[in-house]
Amino acid sequence: MSETAANDEIQKPMLATLLHEGVYRIVMQRPERMNALSSEMMTALAGELRKAAEDPAVRVVLLGAEGKVFCAGHDLKELTAARGEADGGRATYERIMRQCSDLMQQIVRLPKPVIAVVTGVATAAGCQLVASCDLAIATDTATFCTPGVNIGLFCSTPMVALSRNVAPKQAMEMLLTGESIDASTAKDFGLINRIVPRDYLEQVVQKYAESIASKSAKTVKIGKEAFYRQLEMPLSEAYDFAAQTMVENMMARDAEEGINAFLQKRKPEWTDS
Amino acid sequence: MSETAANDEIQKPMLATLLHEGVYRIVMQRPERMNALSSEMMTALAGELRKAAEDPAVRVVLLGAEGKVFCAGHDLKELTAARGEADGGRATYERIMRQCSDLMQQIVRLPKPVIAVVTGVATAAGCQLVASCDLAIATDTATFCTPGVNIGLFCSTPMVALSRNVAPKQAMEMLLTGESIDASTAKDFGLINRIVPRDYLEQVVQKYAESIASKSAKTVKIGKEAFYRQLEMPLSEAYDFAAQTMVENMMARDAEEGINAFLQKRKPEWTDS
Amino acid sequence: MSETAANDEIQKPMLATLLHEGVYRIVMQRPERMNALSSEMMTALAGELRKAAEDPAVRVVLLGAEGKVFCAGHDLKELTAARGEADGGRATYERIMRQCSDLMQQIVRLPKPVIAVVTGVATAAGCQLVASCDLAIATDTATFCTPGVNIGLFCSTPMVALSRNVAPKQAMEMLLTGESIDASTAKDFGLINRIVPRDYLEQVVQKYAESIASKSAKTVKIGKEAFYRQLEMPLSEAYDFAAQTMVENMMARDAEEGINAFLQKRKPEWTDS
Repeated sequence: MSETAANDEIQKPMLATLLHEGVYRIVMQRPERMNALSSEMMTALAGELRKAAEDPAVRVVLLGAEGKVFCAGHDLKELTAARGEADGGRATYERIMRQCSDLMQQIVRLPKPVIAVVTGVATAAGCQLVASCDLAIATDTATFCTPGVNIGLFCSTPMVALSRNVAPKQAMEMLLTGESIDASTAKDFGLINRIVPRDYLEQVVQKYAESIASKSAKTVKIGKEAFYRQLEMPLSEAYDFAAQTMVENMMARDAEEGINAFLQKRKPEWTDS
Repeated sequence: MSETAANDEIQKPMLATLLHEGVYRIVMQRPERMNALSSEMMTALAGELRKAAEDPAVRVVLLGAEGKVFCAGHDLKELTAARGEADGGRATYERIMRQCSDLMQQIVRLPKPVIAVVTGVATAAGCQLVASCDLAIATDTATFCTPGVNIGLFCSTPMVALSRNVAPKQAMEMLLTGESIDASTAKDFGLINRIVPRDYLEQVVQKYAESIASKSAKTVKIGKEAFYRQLEMPLSEAYDFAAQTMVENMMARDAEEGINAFLQKRKPEWTDS
Repeated sequence: MSETAANDEIQKPMLATLLHEGVYRIVMQRPERMNALSSEMMTALAGELRKAAEDPAVRVVLLGAEGKVFCAGHDLKELTAARGEADGGRATYERIMRQCSDLMQQIVRLPKPVIAVVTGVATAAGCQLVASCDLAIATDTATFCTPGVNIGLFCSTPMVALSRNVAPKQAMEMLLTGESIDASTAKDFGLINRIVPRDYLEQVVQKYAESIASKSAKTVKIGKEAFYRQLEMPLSEAYDFAAQTMVENMMARDAEEGINAFLQKRKPEWTDS
């Protein structure tokens, strides 16, 4: 690679973003580094997610990637470089693992739906990224694996997200063998929602995202937050919480408008934010 | 509609019931109101479920509906009417959401199995009703959705039951898009147990229910109660509890009779109640 | 049966074992008693599992059975015999249920993966045994059921393991009807990982087990233990725990070696134990 080309690469931002009709696309564009979750990449992602959370024009987030690898997980060269530090890397590893766990939980807590758009290989923390999104669409060529066990580093943080999407024995097989599953198996396992041929992906994703973007932002925010909270409660506590959520939701203008529009057979106009 | 016809309708009870060979059928018969869960309908259902719980002749409960809509969820006209109240409806919404959550938990806590028989559209709290039953049989024409998001009122209480039946991403897709799934998808998702063509439904449901009705009522009661309790415990606590449940079950006459009958290759005669 | 044959039978040990290339096979060989989990059988299994845990040469455990019945659950004759005791059997039942729950949890806590190899009928606590293993491979002729309800003794301890593998309505159907499911349904339900025709079983199981045996034992131990612990935690606690697990794992020699080998495109040599 010529020096000029190298410079070009350096100046290309980690992420491309685009906001269109309420749909905010975030695209990882380090295909030559397999979109690895280096500290720098995680900082960039967290920044964009924060922007998406705060910008009222954003209704839905799409998380995609350039190249054949959606995301290869942690940056092994970055991890290895830290071994030379006085503490053998411990402080760096603590910082990186914390940063990664925070990023995954930021997706879960984001008040807007986040949809993974997977067109390639999703490995280790890259697979975790897919599992952490609210929804996931993949091409039929996408694959998923948690192969840390092959390099002596069990995918322990990925398994937190994976085992909350996939039944125990199926998650265990991925974790213990490190083998890849194809998109069809991932759909059967509950790791992704839909499989779309590459040629139709753009169209399907756009329609899917726009459909969600057309809902009341306030209602979606109430619902997404309640979903993950009630999931961790025993049944009767979950019902107490969800019933109260419904009451608050009923008192919002968007519910009044939505129900009136439905009864009057017209399109609702959302005004809550 | 003539006045006479209107009077006929008023006098038709909300629910039809029938007890036959231990199988208690409860059929919602407000097809013209899409079997919506109005306060009145919920009160009627709770009353029938209480009767089913108390009557020793009842071994299994079937919950079905007349018409093309199994149940359309809350009665939106009733909800909207309450907006005119001094507090904007808050007290009424609290009462209705509480009543609905109590009804769903009454099914879970009923000492007898409750089987949903779904021959039409199950929407919002109607989908929750199916999810709350122990088992569900549907015709191939049944559909399921949680479309509250479309009218600004996220299906927050339905999601409590839904997310305890269906994997998170699949539940999220139903909740965020509001789109319907067909019976086959519902079976794949774990929301229903069996799909039966309409012409064979009666026969299959009866056989299925009678098979469960033929078991020891005491054993079924012990088992159903233990099932939902242990589900909320960590593994070692669940084992302590379940092991103790097994011991108590062993000390019951029906276990002694059942095991003896099995070893003697004869039919057991249950005497516990 | 001649006296000699009977004597032969008595002298045949409950379990056959074989260690080959890190893979420890434990085979129940009481086909004439349907490999029932008598106290004696459970003691034998617990002993072999303890050995497998302690022996550094063992990397993976395979649990199989001779004959058409993988395991028929509790020994009903043993349970019935105890009825004659002064307390009606209560103390014996407490001991047996405790022993059985301990055995199942011993598998979960074993620092090495345990793979069920199911070539026949797995019933009641036999089905629980399969559910308790980390992974399960079955032939296409294997079947699974929890039929305790038919003999007045609900499968309450089996349901602890079953309901942690299989969605609630599907588990409930097995528990309430007592009906068998075939291998294909068991795979759909998440109860087993793979189905293999009988003629290829040996080959597939060996390859599968050897693949896991070739990983770092320390890494597998860290991962398996973390898997079941984090599964019982709320999300943020699970991430705190898993992130710390990753850091400790990174500080182990096997992770350093594994990552270096990967970056250098060579085979790793594990030295941790």
